[in-house]
Amino acid sequence: MPKRIGKYTIQLENDVRIIESAAIVGKKESEGPLSNYFDKTSSDDKFGEDSWEKAESFLQKTAVELSLKKANLDSNDIDCIFAGDLLNQCISSTFGLRALGIPFLGQYGACSTMAQTIAMSSVFTDSFAADRCVAVTSSHFCSAERQFRFPLEYGGQRTPTAQWTVTGAGSAILQRGGDGVKVNRITIGRINDMGIKDANNMGAAMAPAAAQTILDYFGDTKEKPDSFDLILTGDLGMVGRTLLLELLENEGLKIGEKHNDCGLMIFDIDNQDVHAGGSGCGCSGSVFCSYILQKMKAHELNRVLFIATGALMSPTSSQQGESIPGVAHLIELSST
Amino acid sequence: MPKRIGKYTIQLENDVRIIESAAIVGKKESEGPLSNYFDKTSSDDKFGEDSWEKAESFLQKTAVELSLKKANLDSNDIDCIFAGDLLNQCISSTFGLRALGIPFLGQYGACSTMAQTIAMSSVFTDSFAADRCVAVTSSHFCSAERQFRFPLEYGGQRTPTAQWTVTGAGSAILQRGGDGVKVNRITIGRINDMGIKDANNMGAAMAPAAAQTILDYFGDTKEKPDSFDLILTGDLGMVGRTLLLELLENEGLKIGEKHNDCGLMIFDIDNQDVHAGGSGCGCSGSVFCSYILQKMKAHELNRVLFIATGALMSPTSSQQGESIPGVAHLIELSST
Repeated sequence: MPKRIGKYTIQLENDVRIIESAAIVGKKESEGPLSNYFDKTSSDDKFGEDSWEKAESFLQKTAVELSLKKANLDSNDIDCIFAGDLLNQCISSTFGLRALGIPFLGQYGACSTMAQTIAMSSVFTDSFAADRCVAVTSSHFCSAERQFRFPLEYGGQRTPTAQWTVTGAGSAILQRGGDGVKVNRITIGRINDMGIKDANNMGAAMAPAAAQTILDYFGDTKEKPDSFDLILTGDLGMVGRTLLLELLENEGLKIGEKHNDCGLMIFDIDNQDVHAGGSGCGCSGSVFCSYILQKMKAHELNRVLFIATGALMSPTSSQQGESIPGVAHLIELSST
Repeated sequence: MPKRIGKYTIQLENDVRIIESAAIVGKKESEGPLSNYFDKTSSDDKFGEDSWEKAESFLQKTAVELSLKKANLDSNDIDCIFAGDLLNQCISSTFGLRALGIPFLGQYGACSTMAQTIAMSSVFTDSFAADRCVAVTSSHFCSAERQFRFPLEYGGQRTPTAQWTVTGAGSAILQRGGDGVKVNRITIGRINDMGIKDANNMGAAMAPAAAQTILDYFGDTKEKPDSFDLILTGDLGMVGRTLLLELLENEGLKIGEKHNDCGLMIFDIDNQDVHAGGSGCGCSGSVFCSYILQKMKAHELNRVLFIATGALMSPTSSQQGESIPGVAHLIELSST
């Protein structure tokens, strides 16, 4: 049964494990440094579908099916699926997963969704509300660009602080016991809005939320950054990473040597023309569900903090002159 | 600690109670049959804000603040808030609640959100992952019409099967123990898509999901409809209610005498020109968090099943020729 530590952190008590995971990505991601870690890649970013939205639904469905297959399970073995994405009304999740027949709880945390779905799956399995859950999320460069920014055909110029939405999905299966990466603790984030209004600078909008959640976690648990092999944020990119480290140093917390960001890992940011790095739910989703979990299973990484961050605006809120609230949820993991 | 019953149902074991709730609605709702049960009404559907979206954020924030005030609590007393709405990227929730500083977990279940947020709050409190949670949702006729259908100024003709999106919000506070309505069991719904494509007939799209979840619940628990005072669906309206009763009768389950629907209760459907009834997250949100919980607290209703239903499409999916998947989550409540 979960137990509360401090004000914001939940400690799991029943050996919750991520027993299997899978990730699928598009062409540009398959040309990046993590290429060999993904379960499936495609040179066709439509994945044989006739719209970008249907392609993203395909990504999410395929990620779940691949993870189930790797675990030698089928959809009947899953009590609940927690899923979400960036599209209006989360249609990648609902249309992608409708055929599976698994009890469905849609989550909206923008790019924090991978951590949020892991958090929900962890609490449900740890507490016996479910025996086995799936956590899944996705994003697609083309469905996101046309929804949040410009029609692709317009060929809009990208600013230096802009990030490149990852075409990809990640799925993870959680249960009590078994072999796999252990989920120890969860810190649920609070919404943080520092007044950033530039929708092409998501890193700056999300960094304060990441800093707040990381400070909450270390305050609640009395852990030290040095006892982790990796402190991994979701998709802050280069701008957001720099701000995060500065915000934390101002509070006396140095994590620079342990820190990396999924948005800086998935692309070769010097050579792949992605400006400040990768972003989107599928960025942390695909990196976490492939490279990170594989390295943890191999004990090359032992203690990891995973903090996915989300920017909670919409085109409508931006058009109405609103700033961009951020949120970040944290998962503490260990390889044994 | 929660316990699983059958394949789809979770039984709570630690006396989870809805200790307080509040509802706020707009002008048309304040002219309907439940007028006296709402905590706050307004003759100005903009609630003093300068956009419909900001008005909806105001609704959600006000509902939470009213419920906290009635319970003599403040935001510091809440461990997690589960919130969601119909707007793209759930901006009513994120912008409405950003100032509260409560750990935030965004939910997307379309009009099933009130049941979903109650379900999540129940599992978190029952399992000690949280000591006290808030479940909240909202909708607004004007923000929904212009997002899902037509600009208001266009004056589009409404079809007979169309429903009227409720301007309103409901908030409920859950904890272990104390005075209040008890949450006993939860059935998490599966996505159900029978191929309905008419975005002006939400009732028909959602009725099969409601039927499936109700059948799952009765199958799992061996309960009988006769042992309930009320079996309440969220916003099926007249068309959806008729279909639901027919679908259940085909499976040998008669609930007609016990059934009512929030979308038929909130408006006088013969005289308020709402066609098939009310709809929107705020429909079941405001009816459940006012009339229903008040009648249960007064022991005028003792055993109640609350099944909120959601239609999981977006304008983009409809434009791409997709059908409308539905989902429904069920909450079993008792007054003692």
